[in-house]
Amino acid sequence: MAKQERAVRTREALLRSAAEIFDTDGFVSASLSAICNRAGVSSGALHFHFASKGALADAIEQAAEQRLRLITGPDPGADERSEASPADVDPIQNLVDTSRRLFDQLNNDVVLRAGFTLGCEPSWQSRVDLHGQWRDWIESALRHASDLGALADGTKPEDVVTVVAASTVGFEALGRKDPAWLSQERLGQFWQFMLPRLVPPGTGPQKGT
Amino acid sequence: MAKQERAVRTREALLRSAAEIFDTDGFVSASLSAICNRAGVSSGALHFHFASKGALADAIEQAAEQRLRLITGPDPGADERSEASPADVDPIQNLVDTSRRLFDQLNNDVVLRAGFTLGCEPSWQSRVDLHGQWRDWIESALRHASDLGALADGTKPEDVVTVVAASTVGFEALGRKDPAWLSQERLGQFWQFMLPRLVPPGTGPQKGT
Repeated sequence: MAKQERAVRTREALLRSAAEIFDTDGFVSASLSAICNRAGVSSGALHFHFASKGALADAIEQAAEQRLRLITGPDPGADERSEASPADVDPIQNLVDTSRRLFDQLNNDVVLRAGFTLGCEPSWQSRVDLHGQWRDWIESALRHASDLGALADGTKPEDVVTVVAASTVGFEALGRKDPAWLSQERLGQFWQFMLPRLVPPGTGPQKGT
Repeated sequence: MAKQERAVRTREALLRSAAEIFDTDGFVSASLSAICNRAGVSSGALHFHFASKGALADAIEQAAEQRLRLITGPDPGADERSEASPADVDPIQNLVDTSRRLFDQLNNDVVLRAGFTLGCEPSWQSRVDLHGQWRDWIESALRHASDLGALADGTKPEDVVTVVAASTVGFEALGRKDPAWLSQERLGQFWQFMLPRLVPPGTGPQKGT
């Protein structure tokens, strides 16, 4: 293996191990030696990549920010469209699908999950705002839906943003101690209640599946 | 002041100081000497009342559990009714009013707030489950409303429980870093979206105020 490739793998192993330990023990309790042990890496190698525990947390949050951006895609109202979000996708279906991808990834990707957990830790000052990033994306999605006439009469995008952003953050917070809250079934219940009230009768997704 | 009264006041000062420090610094970072200093109490007095930092956290969570019970009152479907929840109160109005009282208290009562925060800390094993207690109360309130025919046709109590429980926990989690999420205005937006979809047209509270 080339030297550079080995360095990239070591860095990734350290990020993943740190995320696992932050996720279960919290930032303050996490010890650098436990992170090295789990990654199978010497403490010298850790300090080559990360100057401190704070530098590890920063790197996890930056990685989580990028991963969240991959999950959501660009702002739904933005001019430049990627292939992942073509103009002809129903905007509310896109919101439902994106929330489902986010929950899948929160279950499977410990770096993303640790990024969100770090954002709630009183003893850690985040430099990124994942909750804000998610909320802003939801707001763009709903304004875009409103512009396209895809919201039911009298439904105010700003009220729906509040409900969807608060609920999904609540699922994530509750899911930390009870994984059932991060299940697709629980999310399905949420959309089952929301959708018939969100879109005009007979249009858009009606079931959240 | 009688000796016993002084002991009660010292204990309360310690609980409040510990709650303030857990709330801002988290459980692991909180130091016993900072708690003593803030309470204006010697470390001997602290150890007379609480054997450890964990004992303080336990006592805060138990106090928060009692305060939450005072906010909600008894189970809305329970036979024994208190004066605080007479049988003729609209069950959905009762849910709205209770959520408003909870938000008021989360803003004003640091012991209640620290109880909820401790429940999310990865490094602390709670012996009480405030989120579960709140969720169970919401479930009772909605089943009671359903029994009384106060829910709109086709509205399933279990779906609404999921939305209301997840949202209010999300408000609380987001409010830790941005107090606007715990404002009555934000909660009003939530109920403004929910209520017209929750109760039959022309019945019950329609505005969440």
